Amino acid sequence: MKEYTVGIDFGSLSGRAVLMHVKTGEILSSAVYEYPHAVMDEQLPDGTKLPLNTALQHPADYMGVLKHTVPAILREAGIAPEEVVGFGFDFTGSTILPVDDQMQPLCFAKTYQGEPHAYVKLWKHNASQPDADWINEVANARNESWLEIYGGKISAEWMFPKIRQILREAPAVYHDTARFLEAADWISYLLTGKETHSVSFSGFKACWNKDDGYPSDSFFNAVAPEWKTMMGTKVSREVTPIHTVAGTLSAKGAELTGLPEGIPVSVPILDAHASMPAMGITDDRTMMLILGTSGVEVVNSKKKMHIRGICGHVYGSVIPDLYTYEAGQACCGDHFDWFVKNGVPAEYEQAAKAEGVTIHRYLRQKAQALKAGESGLLALDWFNGNRSVLSDASLTGLILGMTLRTRPEEIYRALIEATAFGNRVIFDTFIGGGICIDRIVASGGIAEKDPMLVQIYADVLNRPITVSDAKLSASRGSAMYAAVAAGIYPDISAAAEALAVKSGKTYMPISENVAIYERLYTEYRALHDYFGQGGSDVMKHLRSIREGK
Amino acid sequence: MKEYTVGIDFGSLSGRAVLMHVKTGEILSSAVYEYPHAVMDEQLPDGTKLPLNTALQHPADYMGVLKHTVPAILREAGIAPEEVVGFGFDFTGSTILPVDDQMQPLCFAKTYQGEPHAYVKLWKHNASQPDADWINEVANARNESWLEIYGGKISAEWMFPKIRQILREAPAVYHDTARFLEAADWISYLLTGKETHSVSFSGFKACWNKDDGYPSDSFFNAVAPEWKTMMGTKVSREVTPIHTVAGTLSAKGAELTGLPEGIPVSVPILDAHASMPAMGITDDRTMMLILGTSGVEVVNSKKKMHIRGICGHVYGSVIPDLYTYEAGQACCGDHFDWFVKNGVPAEYEQAAKAEGVTIHRYLRQKAQALKAGESGLLALDWFNGNRSVLSDASLTGLILGMTLRTRPEEIYRALIEATAFGNRVIFDTFIGGGICIDRIVASGGIAEKDPMLVQIYADVLNRPITVSDAKLSASRGSAMYAAVAAGIYPDISAAAEALAVKSGKTYMPISENVAIYERLYTEYRALHDYFGQGGSDVMKHLRSIREGK
Repeated sequence: MKEYTVGIDFGSLSGRAVLMHVKTGEILSSAVYEYPHAVMDEQLPDGTKLPLNTALQHPADYMGVLKHTVPAILREAGIAPEEVVGFGFDFTGSTILPVDDQMQPLCFAKTYQGEPHAYVKLWKHNASQPDADWINEVANARNESWLEIYGGKISAEWMFPKIRQILREAPAVYHDTARFLEAADWISYLLTGKETHSVSFSGFKACWNKDDGYPSDSFFNAVAPEWKTMMGTKVSREVTPIHTVAGTLSAKGAELTGLPEGIPVSVPILDAHASMPAMGITDDRTMMLILGTSGVEVVNSKKKMHIRGICGHVYGSVIPDLYTYEAGQACCGDHFDWFVKNGVPAEYEQAAKAEGVTIHRYLRQKAQALKAGESGLLALDWFNGNRSVLSDASLTGLILGMTLRTRPEEIYRALIEATAFGNRVIFDTFIGGGICIDRIVASGGIAEKDPMLVQIYADVLNRPITVSDAKLSASRGSAMYAAVAAGIYPDISAAAEALAVKSGKTYMPISENVAIYERLYTEYRALHDYFGQGGSDVMKHLRSIREGK
Repeated sequence: MKEYTVGIDFGSLSGRAVLMHVKTGEILSSAVYEYPHAVMDEQLPDGTKLPLNTALQHPADYMGVLKHTVPAILREAGIAPEEVVGFGFDFTGSTILPVDDQMQPLCFAKTYQGEPHAYVKLWKHNASQPDADWINEVANARNESWLEIYGGKISAEWMFPKIRQILREAPAVYHDTARFLEAADWISYLLTGKETHSVSFSGFKACWNKDDGYPSDSFFNAVAPEWKTMMGTKVSREVTPIHTVAGTLSAKGAELTGLPEGIPVSVPILDAHASMPAMGITDDRTMMLILGTSGVEVVNSKKKMHIRGICGHVYGSVIPDLYTYEAGQACCGDHFDWFVKNGVPAEYEQAAKAEGVTIHRYLRQKAQALKAGESGLLALDWFNGNRSVLSDASLTGLILGMTLRTRPEEIYRALIEATAFGNRVIFDTFIGGGICIDRIVASGGIAEKDPMLVQIYADVLNRPITVSDAKLSASRGSAMYAAVAAGIYPDISAAAEALAVKSGKTYMPISENVAIYERLYTEYRALHDYFGQGGSDVMKHLRSIREGK
């Protein structure tokens, strides 16, 4: 029986594959492959030191995911490759790499092994902030109409700032590049031998929209004379709709994965977005909240609106007839990990060991015993910059309110609360912009592992939050898009109706906490506006001093 | 040969005694007695929990110092008690205790053992901030002329706010108290059987000045009706000049210390001030910088000036014919200790252990390798409130500029830099107010142990700083005042000329760092003014939320 699809979620540190039954939605098996190079932010494999705010990846790691996970899930489920009818995947974005005219990543060439700009720039690479600033300045000066789709500002994390950084800092790499690609689109090519460019990435990360396409050559020329002819040469103007077939598995793709040649491969989608259908979100009144390394907020709407500070909206990028609005928090789990690695004393580590629990869990137990507001602390969740609604990667973190009695668990909780307040800013901006939100469904590793955090989010938003029971939701969503590509379902809504996981645990706001968090949020908002909206430029000045400017 | 004096420095956690040769200044021996109850900030000995911002001590611990250290130094030096000609001591302040009509501390009574207000309120107890606020409000409304001596504001750490907290929260304790005393004056009584009140404490911590004495009864009545008759009853109006004899050792004092009855005991002095003559500072152009648990800046001047934000000036409180100006930082070493206890990961602790160095030293090595401004961090050194120049105990700490790459040693260095910037604010305020400073001489545990810190201070101030070679400088200074009391020298300047340690190591500012710190100081000052001078009340709001108000 040909009844299975494979879905792979290419995340920031690993790829996760699932094997799904296309009628029942059952996940028969799953496998993870950790990227051997992980995120390169200090040095390249050859020891070349990397500058600040750099975050690179190695494309060979993505190939490793295909090579290792697909055979593993088939083996584990005892399913023959021939029973797989479709392949789908999602990817982080904007995750950009330069390739040569054979579609080979430049970093594969021996001459470029010590050149940072020849590698993949991971979404969170934000050394291109000066480039984003410049592009925003030019776009503003020219009154570029597409700018308002992205809330008035594009992010350093997106495609064009990353390409401009290469042009500026490594003109030879720029010159030798035949195409700048999203890593997702490079994987499509690798599997199908056909070049496509998913609307999910073009729309959200490269200023493309269905009415006007890409910005004009005259705009690109204004950004950089070298860019006058970039579009259509180094960057393709072709954009492929979601819910279509990117191509069929080539001989090479079949060899790489062990799957049969000729099966359809769906157009890739941004990783977070793949989770929406997996959790049964195909309507226009549910906000999906992904709480992982970073945070993502996605909601669909029938209406086209320009909302200041929101990362953008793209028509049909998840559900064919709806606009999908996205916002994001550049740092969520990363925040807490930073703290656990850098701020937890040995005494706590020993106590956690003695209790046989992880340090996260140990801290959580202690943090949970605190009342809202008890620590007197307040933090800004900008350790990785601010994506929404300030869209400014040069912002940095802040913790305020410490006394000589402040304890680590209080700081841990303050960092969690900070991400909740950051989430509230986004939520309020959506609502203020005209989006309807009746329901919040959360997913992601942090949502699953940390009930205290979800409760704090519910208290800060003063809304119920349901944590979806869907595990591996992005991979599952990708497997659902694969089922649509294979023709099992007419569209993704029908696939979701049949295959989505709709159950979950709901956290109700606790009114006592809501009242305290309302007061704390007022203080957060004041700091947010002061440091983020021009009241004080101290964060930018410190960055300049740090960079020796 | 009767050639020795004893000097004792009663600090925040221990008392240190020295035996000094009155002709050579040689320290023959020294001994430390750690207070068994240390600082009680969480609970009383009987388990009674203490509220936030409370810092109490047990008076029996001070008696323990007398009982243990004096015999120890005599024994160690092989000197007979009869060879000691004078006794001097210094104390923290304002460190207040209530006593009954037998001069017995109230907390010695069984009925009061579970009553926090019956114990000693250590200088850093600042739960009396609301009382300081109220006293300042009344004084301002009445245009009390003495207020400007203290820079326009008195501190929660001083005598009257502490007494008012007792009146407000424990009226029975207030009622049962015969006298509220500085712990220093209580020790004088214990040793001599004579009640005296040192000008050092009255002048700096209780609003007394030589021209007008204490504030009027009408003022105290305006603060609280119960205070109409407090002065002259529960608080003495008598003030004893420094450089005089408080009394002679009573039989009971002799029994307590093992020293001969009848030897002169000098009037006690604030702990930091005792260091000035010990380091040879008797002029009007040298700033003494004490870097210990907290920071103290003291400088003499011939001129009487009112400088906004300075803790006060008192005529003749150190040198007979000079005004002594004091400012302070409520947190210095405390800051770094907090960090080491709460913010250093196990990995660092293990590495320090492997290298066989303390964690402070390990962090210092790493912090020293950083360049000025390299971390991108900036902190406000208000973990214990701000003494000068804001005089606001309700302020709290802040760290800004963190990214996911921020490392513990960067935070450690930022905390050190923050105290240096805090010092610069004070220095600039002194200069701006008309004080001349040609020379800076530093002392204290931190100054001795941390050359990196002293270098940062020199760079931030852009002035050379000499770290005095005088060890145990406060105890040494006390032994010098004892020599004056014993009539060996006509005054403290003559004693300093003969006995002071004048050598030290000088740290020159490094111009490259000066330039960077000048920029960072501008940012510090902006945050200082914004959070400390009414730009944002977020720290106060968080405190209210924390206290459930």
